[in-house]
Amino acid sequence: MPGNTSVTYQGPGDVELVDAGYPEFVLRDGPGVPPENVGRQVRHGAIVKPVATNICGSDQHMVRGRTTAPHGLVLGHEITGEVVEVGPDVEVIKVGDLVSVPFNIACGRCRNCKAGDTHICQRVNPAQPGGAYGYVDMGGWPGGQAEYVLTPYADWNLLRFPDRDQAMAKILDLAMLTDIFPTGYHGCVSAGVTSGSTVYIAGAGPVGLAAAVSALFLGAAVVIVGDLNEQRLEQARRFGCEAVNVGQGEPGELVEQVLGVPEVDCAVDAVGFEARGHGEDTATERPASVLNALMATTRAGGRLGIPGLYVTGDPGAADEAAREGSLSIRFGLGWARAHTFVTGQCPVMRYHRKLMTTILNDRVSIADAVNATVLPLTEARRGYEEFDRGAARKYVLDPHGMIPA
Amino acid sequence: MPGNTSVTYQGPGDVELVDAGYPEFVLRDGPGVPPENVGRQVRHGAIVKPVATNICGSDQHMVRGRTTAPHGLVLGHEITGEVVEVGPDVEVIKVGDLVSVPFNIACGRCRNCKAGDTHICQRVNPAQPGGAYGYVDMGGWPGGQAEYVLTPYADWNLLRFPDRDQAMAKILDLAMLTDIFPTGYHGCVSAGVTSGSTVYIAGAGPVGLAAAVSALFLGAAVVIVGDLNEQRLEQARRFGCEAVNVGQGEPGELVEQVLGVPEVDCAVDAVGFEARGHGEDTATERPASVLNALMATTRAGGRLGIPGLYVTGDPGAADEAAREGSLSIRFGLGWARAHTFVTGQCPVMRYHRKLMTTILNDRVSIADAVNATVLPLTEARRGYEEFDRGAARKYVLDPHGMIPA
Amino acid sequence: MPGNTSVTYQGPGDVELVDAGYPEFVLRDGPGVPPENVGRQVRHGAIVKPVATNICGSDQHMVRGRTTAPHGLVLGHEITGEVVEVGPDVEVIKVGDLVSVPFNIACGRCRNCKAGDTHICQRVNPAQPGGAYGYVDMGGWPGGQAEYVLTPYADWNLLRFPDRDQAMAKILDLAMLTDIFPTGYHGCVSAGVTSGSTVYIAGAGPVGLAAAVSALFLGAAVVIVGDLNEQRLEQARRFGCEAVNVGQGEPGELVEQVLGVPEVDCAVDAVGFEARGHGEDTATERPASVLNALMATTRAGGRLGIPGLYVTGDPGAADEAAREGSLSIRFGLGWARAHTFVTGQCPVMRYHRKLMTTILNDRVSIADAVNATVLPLTEARRGYEEFDRGAARKYVLDPHGMIPA
Amino acid sequence: MPGNTSVTYQGPGDVELVDAGYPEFVLRDGPGVPPENVGRQVRHGAIVKPVATNICGSDQHMVRGRTTAPHGLVLGHEITGEVVEVGPDVEVIKVGDLVSVPFNIACGRCRNCKAGDTHICQRVNPAQPGGAYGYVDMGGWPGGQAEYVLTPYADWNLLRFPDRDQAMAKILDLAMLTDIFPTGYHGCVSAGVTSGSTVYIAGAGPVGLAAAVSALFLGAAVVIVGDLNEQRLEQARRFGCEAVNVGQGEPGELVEQVLGVPEVDCAVDAVGFEARGHGEDTATERPASVLNALMATTRAGGRLGIPGLYVTGDPGAADEAAREGSLSIRFGLGWARAHTFVTGQCPVMRYHRKLMTTILNDRVSIADAVNATVLPLTEARRGYEEFDRGAARKYVLDPHGMIPA
Repeated sequence: MPGNTSVTYQGPGDVELVDAGYPEFVLRDGPGVPPENVGRQVRHGAIVKPVATNICGSDQHMVRGRTTAPHGLVLGHEITGEVVEVGPDVEVIKVGDLVSVPFNIACGRCRNCKAGDTHICQRVNPAQPGGAYGYVDMGGWPGGQAEYVLTPYADWNLLRFPDRDQAMAKILDLAMLTDIFPTGYHGCVSAGVTSGSTVYIAGAGPVGLAAAVSALFLGAAVVIVGDLNEQRLEQARRFGCEAVNVGQGEPGELVEQVLGVPEVDCAVDAVGFEARGHGEDTATERPASVLNALMATTRAGGRLGIPGLYVTGDPGAADEAAREGSLSIRFGLGWARAHTFVTGQCPVMRYHRKLMTTILNDRVSIADAVNATVLPLTEARRGYEEFDRGAARKYVLDPHGMIPA
Repeated sequence: MPGNTSVTYQGPGDVELVDAGYPEFVLRDGPGVPPENVGRQVRHGAIVKPVATNICGSDQHMVRGRTTAPHGLVLGHEITGEVVEVGPDVEVIKVGDLVSVPFNIACGRCRNCKAGDTHICQRVNPAQPGGAYGYVDMGGWPGGQAEYVLTPYADWNLLRFPDRDQAMAKILDLAMLTDIFPTGYHGCVSAGVTSGSTVYIAGAGPVGLAAAVSALFLGAAVVIVGDLNEQRLEQARRFGCEAVNVGQGEPGELVEQVLGVPEVDCAVDAVGFEARGHGEDTATERPASVLNALMATTRAGGRLGIPGLYVTGDPGAADEAAREGSLSIRFGLGWARAHTFVTGQCPVMRYHRKLMTTILNDRVSIADAVNATVLPLTEARRGYEEFDRGAARKYVLDPHGMIPA
Repeated sequence: MPGNTSVTYQGPGDVELVDAGYPEFVLRDGPGVPPENVGRQVRHGAIVKPVATNICGSDQHMVRGRTTAPHGLVLGHEITGEVVEVGPDVEVIKVGDLVSVPFNIACGRCRNCKAGDTHICQRVNPAQPGGAYGYVDMGGWPGGQAEYVLTPYADWNLLRFPDRDQAMAKILDLAMLTDIFPTGYHGCVSAGVTSGSTVYIAGAGPVGLAAAVSALFLGAAVVIVGDLNEQRLEQARRFGCEAVNVGQGEPGELVEQVLGVPEVDCAVDAVGFEARGHGEDTATERPASVLNALMATTRAGGRLGIPGLYVTGDPGAADEAAREGSLSIRFGLGWARAHTFVTGQCPVMRYHRKLMTTILNDRVSIADAVNATVLPLTEARRGYEEFDRGAARKYVLDPHGMIPA
Repeated sequence: MPGNTSVTYQGPGDVELVDAGYPEFVLRDGPGVPPENVGRQVRHGAIVKPVATNICGSDQHMVRGRTTAPHGLVLGHEITGEVVEVGPDVEVIKVGDLVSVPFNIACGRCRNCKAGDTHICQRVNPAQPGGAYGYVDMGGWPGGQAEYVLTPYADWNLLRFPDRDQAMAKILDLAMLTDIFPTGYHGCVSAGVTSGSTVYIAGAGPVGLAAAVSALFLGAAVVIVGDLNEQRLEQARRFGCEAVNVGQGEPGELVEQVLGVPEVDCAVDAVGFEARGHGEDTATERPASVLNALMATTRAGGRLGIPGLYVTGDPGAADEAAREGSLSIRFGLGWARAHTFVTGQCPVMRYHRKLMTTILNDRVSIADAVNATVLPLTEARRGYEEFDRGAARKYVLDPHGMIPA
């Protein structure tokens, strides 16, 4: 039986490769596996050999020590790969299929899954609705920054690419289907982006850029991306966005310089709780600064799509309220403007098939937009470090050297 | 020309009758009229003789001194009455029509009105989107707790009852179409209430009770209303709701006693910023306590309809943050549960026609549910006082003695 | 191994009981089973012992010889029962569960199922999208008017009642969840029925009555049911509908007598292709008469929900065009009124959980509305005959004598 | 007072210029004006000097004698121009504004207008819901292929371009906002076109091409346009569509050659009742051929958007049924596939603002796609003739020589 070199979290700032063992069709005990899930049979699962397995901004929250992630956790929830084994209950997915694995794990058999709410599956995580690979409090399912990974409920979760060669030719674009492209798109859909919208997107990291691509694809008239990182802003400008440096002022002022009015129709928060202030206040973490700025910058009747992560507990927060996830939000402002706020994980299965079709028909270029950058699995640590320093890149790990140059 | 006895705000706790003058087809200068609106021609308006003109919970915020309402303001935004004059641009509405006047004033000619968003009309209030009668910062339009009131853009705003006699026979039910019935219904629609939903409604004042009626009418399986006021809870029980006293515990615990689970599908905040704590903490104002409790009590993927008022400035708030409308909200909890939050005024025109039809066909009894109680206009002060002390009643002023006993 | 007494179609007008054999976890060869489905493994299935198994109007099309149903077909697609065995891939459903079985069979693993379109599952029927129990061209799955029935993809399809005793006490209501209650509700939802709607429902058979119940539950102001059968019309009047005999005129005229206008907001076709004319033309089959009448009776901008069955081939039709399923439709009339037409089977899973909740909480009485009438399985033939003669009843077969009196 | 040279219908094939008289703020008697509308005051109107006024395919139905249009009717419902006078009740629109005039005339004061259904306004046309300029049975409002035209309810209907110079620079694109761009877009929205859809559009005339542009803009993966006219198909290929000649086979076969499957997700009928057969049957008019082909070519669960016109009476139809607007439709096929059919005029106001924004921000090029071709008003007859012969052009009349070369 082969080994399974895997990227693991070993403490704040410490990412190491270990052999986590080749998967079986069972959820074995390990770091962060809830007792109720230990030994769970996965006859409905598939074992996937990742072709591309990305580092995500939300992994950084764990690696920076801003969560209660256990040491030894195998990281990675953005998995695209080849099916190498299927369990006895799998009917649709076949060995040899090239598939996209949604980051949310869902059972396809609970009330929420049946309603299409795969981000809050009730049966894969005993602790709360919603499961994911390689993530704290998400059910204990090992991550996919590894040579092999077990994917449960394969017929339900996995999206098969119709043609292998065609897929390999666009593998870096397709690799974004597991998380950031649907997540960015969901942020825009939640914000009501449609033909002719003006859109402000807070954050030019990979999710922000994916939201910007999505906004344009959804027909937005003008897309303005705000960040403090000039390299990332430059990346946004390359595919048709306006980009503003929020170190130079409040988003509303910067929006007004572009549009002539200090308001947009729709806003997306692709930053989340590790936000900083705006203008002269960028040195400090201000967890509510993006939410408050978006309310000030979105027109009455508008919607805020909030894919950026907010947490129920943050051991690294600056004050006690934020440590419990309580933020000082100018809620009356949103109320006066009749805003709608849409929060939570993206239900990837709602979007991945149609976004795959757009990629396969050359209608959108997501890999270029996020500056997808391939590294071998063995250089995962470097990827984490560079990403943490603000590289305007989306790091894609290639465990088996299969991604064409 | 007749006089126009009107209920006015003269300072905290002080409501007085004055003669505000018979209306003309122009917005005359007066308390709270923005300079841009002074002298505005209202050829599209109608002069309405109120048959029923209600006291609203949101009037109480002003009367308690929790807003910047100017002294002398004519109160009243819940107007049902008879058209006695129409301006030269009015084509549809006729003298003699019995009509419901939505509390939001809308022009029918701006982008928002054309999109059906009459709660954020861009042209009736120079200060911000959205106008109303007799309310602070809502454009300076005199209120309708009076013998006569000018209603602008009559063809757009006013809803004509098809048969006068039929309408007079149900006038107390129809009087709820101007605000609380649509507002409660909107709260439920925003919260996603549908056939089979379980619903928690925070607050058993008139809007909370109207939301409860609406939830049942929308097909909810179980409707649970929470409040501290036992009389109001008793009112909710009379038409088929469960009712829980939040002085006895957190809403989630009380919901669990009813449903066996600590969660509902849908939640409505009919309290707003003048909230108190729950359980042993009811003596203190806790402006975020309802929002935080609703997040804890609503299932993952659920929606929160928030018709309860939150303000951008509250001169009477307990702390400085709340004085600016900033509340300490456990936003991470909502995010983890993928909640959607819908805020703002109800766009009455979206709902009033269909709710009128349900009333006229005896499908719903809203006046009984809210315990509509008629007073002559001259006893307005008594109505305000009793309502402020928590009477489980909805006070309906009857300026001309027209409401049948 | 027990036998399996089953109701079978043996030719026009001929329904007979045979022992079809106790089910295994495989789709055995039999009448109407497509070759591709013969021998299909059903490890994901459950064997259900029907407690209630209803006769449906759509069964009548087969029994009257208006389809190409093969002789020997085991009938019955409205199954409610107890799980007596589960296959090895079943995780959620347990032996002993009391369940509702949707009439559509769906795999939960294809594109359509994942989108919630379980009425057009792509994997259970090799001939076309959509499968069902005991029905011609629906995949060859044996019906459930039997002592035992195999239900595939049990975790996906079956709805478990939360409490067995509670469920047995309402079993006749719950028995309507497999088909007619969701089908009638879907017809209304498709027609846009909401609070305050006026609704016309063509047909007072069980689906029409279920649509009428649904329309009222969805908040309709007035529900008018049209039929030629006075007993069925009387049934509709018993729970609050207006009922009109379309032998006395065109639906529009009859609607005008009720409403004062010849139009409703929403219309539902619960008749389908075996329609007759209206007024003096009721002796003849007029397959497009309902569709044409609904266009004439629905207001501009309205919607037509069409759960009534229309077929692609009708061997018993009066003319050649109708034998191919071509009908002479006054489409220009619908176009001029900007109508929307929604056709097809109901996706039961979209509705059955919420409708179950309304039943269990005493919010709706569907069994009374459709006059549910229990017969032992051995009297199935009598049920078919009486129903075919127009009895104002919904026949529920009770194979094991389990339904409480 | 100036004259008003206008394009009029004088009988089949006969289009002539006459001086119809400069408009006043009243609907004067004239050809096709219903008695109830004669003398109607239009104080809410504006007089517009058309800068661009297009010939529409639906004008051709009249000019070919396929309707009951009266002789002398001033044609033209696609008007873009400059406001030269406003009535006393107009508040928003100002003299000098450059505006787009929706082809539907709507009052903004009836139930349908308030619901956003401006295509079925109840007050501008006494004969039936829905009005338009220069069109048979649409209320008698004179058309705008003229030097001047009266536009009623100007504040409600007219869309002001924010900057005159910017608008004049894109005037040919903006001229498509009055009808064909929203109509094509509405067809796609009705058909459910979204990111990743495959779409078939029947008809490559201006509306079909506008639908194709819209489908791509809405994110379609593949757009296939079918027609018999090779020049028009070539036009579709120029902006990224697949184009198929339906003289070479049934649409399903041709779609299969492109997609590998004989089905699309979404279909749009941009042909209407003057359809011809497919394959070897193109010589004959077959009014239901497009509808039947679309049902055969659209996947189960799909939607058909039907902006193509179907009429209630067609004096030129080949058989008696079609003369009454009855078509032989294979409705059972659509039912088996659970199709939804959306018919009727486009409510332009629902879309024109957002489509204007996309044009002004260079996100879409509609004039090039439809091959907009400018003619002076005096050459209107030539435009009608060439368009009738199948020119792959959209003719834009320029009454005042204001369109920049």
